[in-house]
Amino acid sequence: MRGNSFGNLFTITTFGESHGVGLGVTIDGMPSGFTVSLDDLQDELDKRRPGRLKISTARNEMDQAEILSGVFENKTLGTPISIIFRNTNQRSQDYNELKNEYRPGHADRTTTLKFGHRDHRGGGRASGRETVARVAAGYFAGLLLKDTQFFSYIKQSGPFDFNAITTIPSTKRTDSGLIDESKEEDFKKYVLTLKEQGDSIGGQVRLIIQNCPAALGEPVFDKLKADLSKAMTSIGSCMGVLFGRGVEFATLKGSEISSDSTNFSGIEGGISNGENIYCDIFFKAPSTIGDKAKEGRHDPCILPRVLPVVESMAKIVLADHLLRQKAFTISEP
Amino acid sequence: MRGNSFGNLFTITTFGESHGVGLGVTIDGMPSGFTVSLDDLQDELDKRRPGRLKISTARNEMDQAEILSGVFENKTLGTPISIIFRNTNQRSQDYNELKNEYRPGHADRTTTLKFGHRDHRGGGRASGRETVARVAAGYFAGLLLKDTQFFSYIKQSGPFDFNAITTIPSTKRTDSGLIDESKEEDFKKYVLTLKEQGDSIGGQVRLIIQNCPAALGEPVFDKLKADLSKAMTSIGSCMGVLFGRGVEFATLKGSEISSDSTNFSGIEGGISNGENIYCDIFFKAPSTIGDKAKEGRHDPCILPRVLPVVESMAKIVLADHLLRQKAFTISEP
Amino acid sequence: MRGNSFGNLFTITTFGESHGVGLGVTIDGMPSGFTVSLDDLQDELDKRRPGRLKISTARNEMDQAEILSGVFENKTLGTPISIIFRNTNQRSQDYNELKNEYRPGHADRTTTLKFGHRDHRGGGRASGRETVARVAAGYFAGLLLKDTQFFSYIKQSGPFDFNAITTIPSTKRTDSGLIDESKEEDFKKYVLTLKEQGDSIGGQVRLIIQNCPAALGEPVFDKLKADLSKAMTSIGSCMGVLFGRGVEFATLKGSEISSDSTNFSGIEGGISNGENIYCDIFFKAPSTIGDKAKEGRHDPCILPRVLPVVESMAKIVLADHLLRQKAFTISEP
Amino acid sequence: MRGNSFGNLFTITTFGESHGVGLGVTIDGMPSGFTVSLDDLQDELDKRRPGRLKISTARNEMDQAEILSGVFENKTLGTPISIIFRNTNQRSQDYNELKNEYRPGHADRTTTLKFGHRDHRGGGRASGRETVARVAAGYFAGLLLKDTQFFSYIKQSGPFDFNAITTIPSTKRTDSGLIDESKEEDFKKYVLTLKEQGDSIGGQVRLIIQNCPAALGEPVFDKLKADLSKAMTSIGSCMGVLFGRGVEFATLKGSEISSDSTNFSGIEGGISNGENIYCDIFFKAPSTIGDKAKEGRHDPCILPRVLPVVESMAKIVLADHLLRQKAFTISEP
Repeated sequence: MRGNSFGNLFTITTFGESHGVGLGVTIDGMPSGFTVSLDDLQDELDKRRPGRLKISTARNEMDQAEILSGVFENKTLGTPISIIFRNTNQRSQDYNELKNEYRPGHADRTTTLKFGHRDHRGGGRASGRETVARVAAGYFAGLLLKDTQFFSYIKQSGPFDFNAITTIPSTKRTDSGLIDESKEEDFKKYVLTLKEQGDSIGGQVRLIIQNCPAALGEPVFDKLKADLSKAMTSIGSCMGVLFGRGVEFATLKGSEISSDSTNFSGIEGGISNGENIYCDIFFKAPSTIGDKAKEGRHDPCILPRVLPVVESMAKIVLADHLLRQKAFTISEP
Repeated sequence: MRGNSFGNLFTITTFGESHGVGLGVTIDGMPSGFTVSLDDLQDELDKRRPGRLKISTARNEMDQAEILSGVFENKTLGTPISIIFRNTNQRSQDYNELKNEYRPGHADRTTTLKFGHRDHRGGGRASGRETVARVAAGYFAGLLLKDTQFFSYIKQSGPFDFNAITTIPSTKRTDSGLIDESKEEDFKKYVLTLKEQGDSIGGQVRLIIQNCPAALGEPVFDKLKADLSKAMTSIGSCMGVLFGRGVEFATLKGSEISSDSTNFSGIEGGISNGENIYCDIFFKAPSTIGDKAKEGRHDPCILPRVLPVVESMAKIVLADHLLRQKAFTISEP
Repeated sequence: MRGNSFGNLFTITTFGESHGVGLGVTIDGMPSGFTVSLDDLQDELDKRRPGRLKISTARNEMDQAEILSGVFENKTLGTPISIIFRNTNQRSQDYNELKNEYRPGHADRTTTLKFGHRDHRGGGRASGRETVARVAAGYFAGLLLKDTQFFSYIKQSGPFDFNAITTIPSTKRTDSGLIDESKEEDFKKYVLTLKEQGDSIGGQVRLIIQNCPAALGEPVFDKLKADLSKAMTSIGSCMGVLFGRGVEFATLKGSEISSDSTNFSGIEGGISNGENIYCDIFFKAPSTIGDKAKEGRHDPCILPRVLPVVESMAKIVLADHLLRQKAFTISEP
Repeated sequence: MRGNSFGNLFTITTFGESHGVGLGVTIDGMPSGFTVSLDDLQDELDKRRPGRLKISTARNEMDQAEILSGVFENKTLGTPISIIFRNTNQRSQDYNELKNEYRPGHADRTTTLKFGHRDHRGGGRASGRETVARVAAGYFAGLLLKDTQFFSYIKQSGPFDFNAITTIPSTKRTDSGLIDESKEEDFKKYVLTLKEQGDSIGGQVRLIIQNCPAALGEPVFDKLKADLSKAMTSIGSCMGVLFGRGVEFATLKGSEISSDSTNFSGIEGGISNGENIYCDIFFKAPSTIGDKAKEGRHDPCILPRVLPVVESMAKIVLADHLLRQKAFTISEP
């Protein structure tokens, strides 16, 4: 209830400050008997690892997952799966100067307002590092949705503006998260230049879910779009989410959209209809600018790292709704 | 868990199909001792009543609230407040033709996919009529937030495009929900013409919350923006929500936004900072078009009616978070 | 969260004060497509109706259920089922004297301590009348458990002490709730004499659940025995619950119980094993004594009326756990 | 929802199999700013540590707590507190013989029924080892209840039968958990003899809560007695709980109990009234008997170890209800 759990049947609880001993997640609600591949889990985690990409933060925490429970002989037990990550690179001396300083745009001030006592050494729970726990949970959620594909890419960031596709492309996205390979070098250069200038940039991510099971979503409050919206806007720096044709809906007439169901983005009445779900998720530029932003550990653009987080949260929402729909699919004897 | 409850401490559970006996809401979590004015409650309800506005649906259900419990001698008891509304104008014969028909863009098909058995006489839970329960609950939530103001208006609808204000104006909005009185007649004409044409239009609503208590919002999943997003996208036809500068965040640099905290929309790290919160909420055009849409009971534009629903959901989210924050504000003895 | 909801997937929320406009229950989580018989529902309700039994309170509220939603053409819709009961016999003038009086043993004083404002006309939420909502919900829960039998009887009350059976008998219990027909008249006389004396009596009820589906119960906190215990002790006047051999467990050796699994009462490790579940539920004597207790509307022994409530709560717990177990019974693709 | 979380505002989620990598607990809902003493935490944990008592199991896992998060500079942060314990003494070779064997009275068979896949090396989640997580959480809950005392003792076990006190005694209980020091040696001898015989014994524990804040408990389902009952019966081997005068209520008349409020055990209408709460909690004898029970690691009587668990669960229930009551104690502006 304090806000660190998400999901109703596939429930995750995350914990850990960015500069404490460690962080992690406990998944309560993973069914038993699913095969777990530590390699696959680590692959997912590596996608969001700072340091992997040149354009991402240099801080290297390794993101080495340790599974404490819930898996036995490579299969899930149906009991809580707890996964921890140690913080190996705390360098708390770097942060002493921050003890009485509130960085603008960060959660420092509101965290203090809310809790009184704060771990000033870093972002605490507001740090991007928290998302490693979400990605770990997303791996397990994905095991429940083997036939569903989740794909996200950078649709826009600063001057870069890519196509608004509604179907997952056959080619992979680039290392930076683009669907246009020819722009990869330009984008990298743009981000590095921003870093040199001590500046940062926001962007929007498009998420596409293909082969989503039909009948997921629980009206009237836990509509699929409602839970996906919450999932996305719970990610740090996320400033909103738009489904289907998004801002265009403000000017489109009923006669212009009713003929083509893809406009509604795979969700009708809050319930998936089996068609592709797609939405755009907006992120603001990182708030750290100026000389501090020039230091190694700050990302001028979080979008490449945020893609696996977006996909993981979508998996968690769908896994939860899959179990919910399953619970109620019961016939009169 | 089936999805008809919302909120953690200020919890509402709504019930009722559009063409059944009645619908309503039970509020569990309203503190005791608050003065209730039935007149004020009915005023809120009337704002969304179909039939009040010429441009709104002609079906007149009266929206007469009956409070069954939780209020005694005009004060809340701290026990569940249950409020019901009877459906007085069912005319089920109108709907027999719909028994085996799925109206495009409506929830008919997905509701059948999900539940099997469906009340084909109307939209059931997906009907806009369901929102009367939300507005009733919003009235009580508002009693907890006497010093906070909630204001919404039509920011855009079809060719009409109004200012993106971030502060509640001193003048009231028009009957249709505009902040520019001079456009009221044009807008009404536009909507009536759409009706004559059997067409409909979407739009975006701007919501402004002024004097929001600071420290509300529960990271990392129940951030204030996350719960507001869910609340808004749980409203029928809502296709997304954007906080602060919205789509602009995709192109704005850190250096362009960090200097002015209003860009972040009153929420930092998912926690309210006491400044104005504002966001834009997008609605698609009603799916009923063609000859059916020309009949009296269909709205070509739901935005005027949706404004009190948007404000009510915001009140419910804030009331819930106010109680949550209160619970944990406790000092070491 | 305020405490008026019960269950996770089969969730009931009850509302209503004993002397307000009405009371009722909303069930969120009843699957769709189940046939509803209003006659059967009313039969269940009549079992706990005051006035039916000579030895029960004379107040006659009729307990006439009105279903507002969730049922269409005699089948459940999968949407919330809301059922209300009007209070037709309020006679509030009887209660004015109670405005500033706390009846010993009643919840009057603690209710005022907790809520400040109280409906002094009666027991409010603490009234036995609240249980009508539980029985209505129990009817629907029972539809999910057609092959499971729930039986309860008065095992002990004052000088009356009956057998501790562990299997449902083939003969029906008496009107008063006994399994020994030959004691029925004596028991009725005993209770009537107590009433004449302005006194009251407690007792213990034995509950037997036969043909319980195996694998229900969610360790480590929502063990079946834990949720059944909570369900029973949430009933007014209930002072405890004992499973299987109950108090004997304090003196029995492992060697004396391990050979016979019926000792453990059908639950091992918190999970049903398919065998009969049985437990004893203890109720204190009604607190109203003296001249007031001699008036018509007070029951000197609540046990006959409490039996359908005990069975209903058991049904609700099992229905909830049935859906929970169903949700997680999913195989790796 | 899978059953490994407990509490609504002070919420604990436990994880870990007895023979996996480790186990632990995440507390979400501990307010910020409370001073944490690792020594005090370890003292609580040591009370239930197998191996401490001669009569307890010899397996020595050290129960060394590692706090991963939520505490900074010896004060709680208000963020999730995650505490882990490693299993250092797994000796899994001992357990290979158990792969296809279901120990009678254990959860082996029902766990397999429920989950299919099982960690056969030990009791898994059903192991008594799981309770270490509850005691760790209880330490933090206790910080919120500095003025409330929790005391439990062995009231009865086999031939040993002690006084049913309702007030916490001024003298400490013995190492074995008795309130009669003169019986300590006899009791130890009795238990050791049982071990030599490969037998075991059950018992009942009395819990006394003194200086409980008034107004705790949330009718109608989350009454204080209901949540305490659930908390206790969620402990492995617990077979029931009785409040106040317990089984006597079956034969006591209203006239015999109404005059003395202590009969009702400090709870009226499900709400604490500030007086002492006391209840008896029944535990069955450990199911392991015969030659296996003679091995070092099996306890013939779990009661000495269960006392800190009982007290911890009571603390967790009260902490949760304290925060809940706090949330709703808000005045009309």
